[in-house]
Amino acid sequence: MKFLGVDLGGTKIKAGIVLENGDIVDKTEADTPVWDGIDGIVGSILILIDKLLKSNGLTLQSIKAIGVGIPGVCNKEGLVYYAPNLFWNHVPLGSLLKEKIGVPIFIENDATVAAIGEATCGVTRGVSNSVLLTLGTGIGSGIIINGNTYRGNHGIGSEIGHMIVGENFYNCNCGNNGCLETFASATALVKYTEKLLMESNVNSILSRIDNNIHRLDAKLVFDCAKEGDFLANKAVDRLVKYLAIGIGNIINILDPEVIVIGGGISKAGSFLIDKLNKEIPKYIWLKSMNLTKIVLAGLENDAGIVGSAMLAKEKFANTNR
Amino acid sequence: MKFLGVDLGGTKIKAGIVLENGDIVDKTEADTPVWDGIDGIVGSILILIDKLLKSNGLTLQSIKAIGVGIPGVCNKEGLVYYAPNLFWNHVPLGSLLKEKIGVPIFIENDATVAAIGEATCGVTRGVSNSVLLTLGTGIGSGIIINGNTYRGNHGIGSEIGHMIVGENFYNCNCGNNGCLETFASATALVKYTEKLLMESNVNSILSRIDNNIHRLDAKLVFDCAKEGDFLANKAVDRLVKYLAIGIGNIINILDPEVIVIGGGISKAGSFLIDKLNKEIPKYIWLKSMNLTKIVLAGLENDAGIVGSAMLAKEKFANTNR
Repeated sequence: MKFLGVDLGGTKIKAGIVLENGDIVDKTEADTPVWDGIDGIVGSILILIDKLLKSNGLTLQSIKAIGVGIPGVCNKEGLVYYAPNLFWNHVPLGSLLKEKIGVPIFIENDATVAAIGEATCGVTRGVSNSVLLTLGTGIGSGIIINGNTYRGNHGIGSEIGHMIVGENFYNCNCGNNGCLETFASATALVKYTEKLLMESNVNSILSRIDNNIHRLDAKLVFDCAKEGDFLANKAVDRLVKYLAIGIGNIINILDPEVIVIGGGISKAGSFLIDKLNKEIPKYIWLKSMNLTKIVLAGLENDAGIVGSAMLAKEKFANTNR
Repeated sequence: MKFLGVDLGGTKIKAGIVLENGDIVDKTEADTPVWDGIDGIVGSILILIDKLLKSNGLTLQSIKAIGVGIPGVCNKEGLVYYAPNLFWNHVPLGSLLKEKIGVPIFIENDATVAAIGEATCGVTRGVSNSVLLTLGTGIGSGIIINGNTYRGNHGIGSEIGHMIVGENFYNCNCGNNGCLETFASATALVKYTEKLLMESNVNSILSRIDNNIHRLDAKLVFDCAKEGDFLANKAVDRLVKYLAIGIGNIINILDPEVIVIGGGISKAGSFLIDKLNKEIPKYIWLKSMNLTKIVLAGLENDAGIVGSAMLAKEKFANTNR
């Protein structure tokens, strides 16, 4: 069986033909025409799908279902309530795509799709209960319960990045103060490092980027921390502290078997995981039962395509039971 | 079909014969012989069950299954990892009871059991996804997902009372700082009111209890707040703020249809619910979708008996499918 996975991002749309086992047959991509609005984006998705099918000598009839991962939240019918990077509010993506394509289409939040990908053919294969956190510009998350995607009653759940875990020196884009993503995303790490640099006379990090603070990014902060830079370690340790509070809260509430860390910040690898494994036990309530495993995401750049295709597979299987 | 529900608390053991629809046929109770240890408590449970059966002319054969709600956490086999009020650590309650009784026995955390009771024959009947919070000496919680109890991978989940939501002036019994139950339990309300009273010259509340601060309880603080007392309102508003952060976090993560408020604090009724409904939208991330309903628990004093019996009914149905 073949499925189509579409990874609709704020800058790129990626699409691929994917086999049941998660193997990609072929893939393609295009820039997201954000400024052409909903019709432009729907058009681009259709062109990518058409191109993929033609270059593989296939027709839509050979595709069982299509999955689309979106940078926002939606209901079961693919009505996108909110997708800030696409400037979308209440956009009926599902029905617009269904009008044009005669194949079952399923739409879901991109982090949830990544969690499905990991659970189907990545690091959480065979795990019943898992949570995935993507630490990037913001923090996305996906929850798998009893082997199935958990999306909440209105499709607005699994937004762990907006869990309030303390008070912060700046507000979140959502308007609240203290959201996890203002402490533990790449953006948060850069903002806090900038703050530390401005408050101190240390310029060890700045010297690496010709004193141009606009070139500061999360990778550099982690690289400097690994090399022992005091200020960079202070910034990383703050990220780790609040991320551990957030993960501890998830353990106290959902007690999953595995928590998967993905996104740009996860490139810090075992340096980050080792620090987390030391910090998390401070925040779980039953310290003698520190059993949830913290692991790095397995699917890399193609996680969106594979996850969306696996979403299609999951939903297709559920509707054809 | 008849089930037996046992509500094992830190001060009382209550037991009842319960019909499928949640109606109690008969009930009885005894003091919990905490100081007689595990054998004393198992003995008491057996005596209560025997008494109930005899006085209703029944035998164990007429009981389909027995449910036991415990003030702690346990695994599926009823191994109680931790029950602080019973001074239990790793007590095999399930196997001890199964040795003596030839009827299926299921053991679960008391707040989870209360959530099952509400979902089966209380305020969340017919609701797929709900969360129950019992605000009493501590904060217990139960999570219902897709109509079934959610207990996590190791049986230590749904401890929402230990979600860290800020920094507090005293530590939680679990050793952490900032747990929800140190802000929003009856104990927390009394502690903070005492602190406010000690820091101020106001004694409006104290005059109601002959200046004996040891007589201060959560009900009095709420009563004084309802009457407009400034200090009592300050204490209640702090409880409401952090409870709203905790509930907002639950909505951001689990997006349930209903959140049920039970326990002693819930006696404040609509005074509390109205305040929560004003405060919660501040902490949910997608403010245009403030859809989760906050309701008071429906089952009162018998919630433990009915919930435990409904646990037995749920598990019995699952094992006999």
